[in-house]
Amino acid sequence: MTIEIENAKIGVVGLGLMGSSIATNFLIAGHQVVGLELMPEAYRMASMRIDHHLQACDELKLLEDNTSYNPNNLHLTQTYKDLEDCDLVLESVVEDLAIKSEVIQQIEKTVSGHCVIASNTSAIPITTLQKKMESPSRFLGLHWSEPAYASRYLEIICGAHTDLQIAKQIQQVGPRWGKEPILLKKDIRGFVTNRLMYAVYREGLQILERGEANIEALDKSFRYDTGSWITMMGIFQRMDYLGIKYFENLAERTLGRLSNAKEVPDAMKKIVAEKGRGVHNQNGLYSYSQQEAEDWKEAFGKFSSELHQLSEKWLK
Amino acid sequence: MTIEIENAKIGVVGLGLMGSSIATNFLIAGHQVVGLELMPEAYRMASMRIDHHLQACDELKLLEDNTSYNPNNLHLTQTYKDLEDCDLVLESVVEDLAIKSEVIQQIEKTVSGHCVIASNTSAIPITTLQKKMESPSRFLGLHWSEPAYASRYLEIICGAHTDLQIAKQIQQVGPRWGKEPILLKKDIRGFVTNRLMYAVYREGLQILERGEANIEALDKSFRYDTGSWITMMGIFQRMDYLGIKYFENLAERTLGRLSNAKEVPDAMKKIVAEKGRGVHNQNGLYSYSQQEAEDWKEAFGKFSSELHQLSEKWLK
Repeated sequence: MTIEIENAKIGVVGLGLMGSSIATNFLIAGHQVVGLELMPEAYRMASMRIDHHLQACDELKLLEDNTSYNPNNLHLTQTYKDLEDCDLVLESVVEDLAIKSEVIQQIEKTVSGHCVIASNTSAIPITTLQKKMESPSRFLGLHWSEPAYASRYLEIICGAHTDLQIAKQIQQVGPRWGKEPILLKKDIRGFVTNRLMYAVYREGLQILERGEANIEALDKSFRYDTGSWITMMGIFQRMDYLGIKYFENLAERTLGRLSNAKEVPDAMKKIVAEKGRGVHNQNGLYSYSQQEAEDWKEAFGKFSSELHQLSEKWLK
Repeated sequence: MTIEIENAKIGVVGLGLMGSSIATNFLIAGHQVVGLELMPEAYRMASMRIDHHLQACDELKLLEDNTSYNPNNLHLTQTYKDLEDCDLVLESVVEDLAIKSEVIQQIEKTVSGHCVIASNTSAIPITTLQKKMESPSRFLGLHWSEPAYASRYLEIICGAHTDLQIAKQIQQVGPRWGKEPILLKKDIRGFVTNRLMYAVYREGLQILERGEANIEALDKSFRYDTGSWITMMGIFQRMDYLGIKYFENLAERTLGRLSNAKEVPDAMKKIVAEKGRGVHNQNGLYSYSQQEAEDWKEAFGKFSSELHQLSEKWLK
């Protein structure tokens, strides 16, 4: 199936934190965007959210010399019918199988047979979401990272029934969206980054539980050591940089000592039991005043985009 | 024991890639530095290496308005005797227990009783290195990451016999060296970053072996997703940012699926058997011409320092 993607009209269903950020990404890439939000409160907020993201894009010079962006390209709606002539519809609603399935069925009922349907899920297998679909071959996962309009990351995930050609066409349009998409042909649980990062959490929690280092030390270690090279290298290119043989030696000495926990470690249960919703209610592993939390979130958005520009510059 | 560290005269033994980079860090922090290199070829190269690093520091504006740096503060030597009035001596010779033990014994014979002795080892337990020392309480690990003069990372590792007060005094002087040191009170095998990163390698190699994603996809995934936040957050502050509860849910679903390999996975053995010395002989997991390899190494140095400046800016 050849799909219209270069000049696609794109629907985004669910305009929360992530959905509005993704809608902004499509807008600045020059697409016509239909934003559907069923919850009245969130619908009222949606326009403000997207404006806020566009302002951030402007500060980051993503709108400078950008002739593709047209503010009239955004249409916000509360009815599925407005999605009917979309070429691609992405759902970004809450991570709940029943809700996502229902939304996907509604989308499928509305759009044409040529429309690609995608999910931003980071937890539910794509194959599971395909089960109740009439034509599951046009369905795939598009997994973004925040802020979607500035991050270079996009994971394209095929379910068991996805037409690989569609996934490849989406991969090709990635650079227009400012992305370097990676394509997963198999629907692995947890996707790639989650799998790699939970390996880190498992080990970090073991070190914490044994009192070998505290939270601050673990964070600084990962931030300032791994963080100093990871954007440029990735883990396997790191092997090339430091010499492959060295890694085998160190792996031999290290692997037998790593955590093999299959259950959520007590250290994490304790954290969850004792702590609140992190930065969102100023009661997390670290302490923040409300102002500090807001300043920090803003700084993170800016850092993230400047980092993007930095890697653009040095990866040429 | 109270040590002289603020205005310490510092010895660096072994002026290879890492040692010369560490010596440069001490120089630009305003210390008098005695650089000892016993191998004739490396001794001849040492001055050039340090000049090259200083030039990089200059390009990175680390020398601008830096009234501490004095080019006359560097003294290169081939004899241990010149270390005798140092307040701190760090060894950064090859990762070989016999060689490091011998070097540490020579240092201990030469210096005064007030001199702190440190090792840059990333593989040998500090406690093991303490075994043959006369006064092991003044010995600790100082684990740097490259480039030492620009990276913010410094791991301070206590062995079983280290005087914790000395480690704490070194931690306090960290900011003067441009570092945010983390202190490990226990001498854990593999140190913190290595432990976390080998958890990543173990899982990455499992994904590779199962054909779920290839090397490029794994690298991009880690670079563009994890890489987009890691410098600002660390893994536990990430929990605060995204909501702690979310992590427990995802951990429950993910942990049971992670690799528990205790042996070096076949995928890594295959890589080592088939490939050469990575970027150093242009025969790695990726392919590079000699020019590309050199350009890339240079770009990495610059990226790394600009990233440092970026985080300085946004972490205020």
